[in-house]
Amino acid sequence: MAVKIGLLGLGTVGTGTAQILLDPTGRNPLLEEITISKVGVRSPDKPRQVELSEGVITTDLESIVNDPEIAIVVELLGGLEPARSLILQAIANKKHVVTANKAVIARYGDEIYEAANEAGVYVLLEAAVGGGIPIIKPLKQSLGANRIVSIIGIINGTTNYILTKMTSDGADFGEVLAEAQQLGYAEADPTADVDGLDAADKIAILASLGFAGRVKREDIYCEGIREISATDITYAEQLGFVIKLLAIAQGTEGENSQQLELRVHPTLVPKNHPLASINGVYNAVLVEGKPLGQVMFFGPGAGAGPTASAVVSDIMNIVAILKSSGTNNNLDPLLSCVHQHFCQITPIEAINTRFYARFLTKDLPGVIGYLGTTFGDHQVSLESVVQIGFQGELAEIVVVTHYVREGNFNTALDEIRNLEAIDSIPSIVRVL
Amino acid sequence: MAVKIGLLGLGTVGTGTAQILLDPTGRNPLLEEITISKVGVRSPDKPRQVELSEGVITTDLESIVNDPEIAIVVELLGGLEPARSLILQAIANKKHVVTANKAVIARYGDEIYEAANEAGVYVLLEAAVGGGIPIIKPLKQSLGANRIVSIIGIINGTTNYILTKMTSDGADFGEVLAEAQQLGYAEADPTADVDGLDAADKIAILASLGFAGRVKREDIYCEGIREISATDITYAEQLGFVIKLLAIAQGTEGENSQQLELRVHPTLVPKNHPLASINGVYNAVLVEGKPLGQVMFFGPGAGAGPTASAVVSDIMNIVAILKSSGTNNNLDPLLSCVHQHFCQITPIEAINTRFYARFLTKDLPGVIGYLGTTFGDHQVSLESVVQIGFQGELAEIVVVTHYVREGNFNTALDEIRNLEAIDSIPSIVRVL
Repeated sequence: MAVKIGLLGLGTVGTGTAQILLDPTGRNPLLEEITISKVGVRSPDKPRQVELSEGVITTDLESIVNDPEIAIVVELLGGLEPARSLILQAIANKKHVVTANKAVIARYGDEIYEAANEAGVYVLLEAAVGGGIPIIKPLKQSLGANRIVSIIGIINGTTNYILTKMTSDGADFGEVLAEAQQLGYAEADPTADVDGLDAADKIAILASLGFAGRVKREDIYCEGIREISATDITYAEQLGFVIKLLAIAQGTEGENSQQLELRVHPTLVPKNHPLASINGVYNAVLVEGKPLGQVMFFGPGAGAGPTASAVVSDIMNIVAILKSSGTNNNLDPLLSCVHQHFCQITPIEAINTRFYARFLTKDLPGVIGYLGTTFGDHQVSLESVVQIGFQGELAEIVVVTHYVREGNFNTALDEIRNLEAIDSIPSIVRVL
Repeated sequence: MAVKIGLLGLGTVGTGTAQILLDPTGRNPLLEEITISKVGVRSPDKPRQVELSEGVITTDLESIVNDPEIAIVVELLGGLEPARSLILQAIANKKHVVTANKAVIARYGDEIYEAANEAGVYVLLEAAVGGGIPIIKPLKQSLGANRIVSIIGIINGTTNYILTKMTSDGADFGEVLAEAQQLGYAEADPTADVDGLDAADKIAILASLGFAGRVKREDIYCEGIREISATDITYAEQLGFVIKLLAIAQGTEGENSQQLELRVHPTLVPKNHPLASINGVYNAVLVEGKPLGQVMFFGPGAGAGPTASAVVSDIMNIVAILKSSGTNNNLDPLLSCVHQHFCQITPIEAINTRFYARFLTKDLPGVIGYLGTTFGDHQVSLESVVQIGFQGELAEIVVVTHYVREGNFNTALDEIRNLEAIDSIPSIVRVL
């Protein structure tokens, strides 16, 4: 007996998903046992790139999550509402859910997984992070034998495209953003991407899986790439780095318990680091575990085909379980969400990191001494101080620190800012 | 109720596996529900790096596969026998099997999966390919929505270490092999690694999963790295390539049906290709699918910790299914082996590839013309002909072809070999 599914949304990913399901030849035979029963859309008369049987398309989204014949609801609407309410309604009706919606899961994962556990249904979300890259299921199923040390990802294709282009062309942010918008790599309102919000949604999900605890989305420190200049990219290059927007989840031993550092920000990445060569719209996630060591997952982080590949893999996963298990089974503990506590997130001031900072100064010899002394007073030890160029009358000094407590670094910077000889501090970027 | 497992073998991987299972804190809570019931070894008095309860260690391997209390048998003996017989006996006793044994699965997968399907048990083998890299489960579960186009891997750490070292040090094969043997990266008898046999076992397994058909191990064309010289690595470098031992499975449209190219050989890889930067003992597998595009999995391809991580993930996977499903269920079609037919393998003479060939010649101007004509007579079109150096009196000419049918290239070479002006053809390497 075929398993009936309902799709919410028929945009690019929805269309890609339907195209795979309607053309199973040469793919896994399990696809032949899946029927698209209903597809919910806003505009029923819009031309579509996929041919659906008559009566399949509807504008009544609620009729899909309430349809007793539908076993799996596939939510591809994006955005918070009505996605959240429809997911919850589907769960209440004991339907399994597949979603690509990182924003809803990062904010309401809590509520959604509690409801799903109670109803005994799965909520799978492989497509929510890294597009077509298998990363959610490997974290759940393949890496669980490990103590996870860190998860570091380039998980926003738009910003990686912009930074790659800025690096290759020596162009400035605004210029490349406009071009990315024209090419369809960036949205008209690019906020979610360039300010790091999308990456923060995604690292919230990965951290929650890797470190087995819930994550409050608002606890994630988040800094975008608007302030990155061509100048900094050039200086970084000279120092042996490329600049990437990284999403970082890292376990640290707190005073009383396991703590988690959770942050999204532009980062100087050493050129020989595996993430340094991930360019363009590609995504990559580097997971370090004990005793595993480092593994990296790399691939297309967005796009109709890759994302649909991940969506369909989740559908197949549920269908496989439905076909192999009897009724009245418990949820597979590796595929469901069993943790209940919240991770303790280290405040950004308390993290230890290295910094790159660029200063514009008037009085060069005096300033170098002063920088050293002031940083030293606040336990900030410098790895290098380089006078790297001039901008008009002003000398440009670049400093790279050793690992420092972020709070100490900031206190030192506040003092330095007040010095008469310091014209400005145009950039501060963390170093991996 | 804890699930009882029996380990066959307590070498490096067996020890790593036991260490994870005996120290579950901070890992997936499912590990706490697994008990090591028996461990079969050859030498019971050997000192071990893991503390097992009294009575757990036994030299009677059959008592493990016949123990009615044991639900999962973990085979970490390596080699063909007694591994094969013990696996089959465990299956006959309706025990699930986890194995890291690529040699047994590549040769007897057929027999083993038929028995497993009949008995209704799983045989999982994540550790058999790519050590700690999750690749088997992603191929089964996450990429099944795709039509797989190709699977290309660097899946033997020993040869990758040797080639990397030859490249960085300009050293010759024999020299680096001796060093690798001292460091424990190569075995005293390096045949399985350096002649490509281990990689062939592994690509047989990956191809079978990706292309959903059984593979006859003896159909795989296999060429090792003994003939690769420092000279060729240098020339490859000048032409923009690095030399890697690749295992390649590639679908092609045959005259009547879907065909599969399946081969292991040293290959010139363009420097900007994702596999070109995989160095040392690391492994990587690049999978291309439609509509997915390319994804790459990268990580430590061997070693106690990484391999044990994969072994334990398989054990956890089975335990999760045992705990969630009722009794009398069917096998999950994504985790079991459902295909029955054999893939049709294209003979090596019929594949299309590019070639790099190095000639030592006496009469330079005459030979270049002759090479062009003879290759042309056999539909071999040349991308470049470079006179690249001298060895004593002999001129060294390097040729890179466009895509050619391998059989045509060989026929042309046979003619060229007979020319008086050709001293020898020291190297022929395929180009990706």
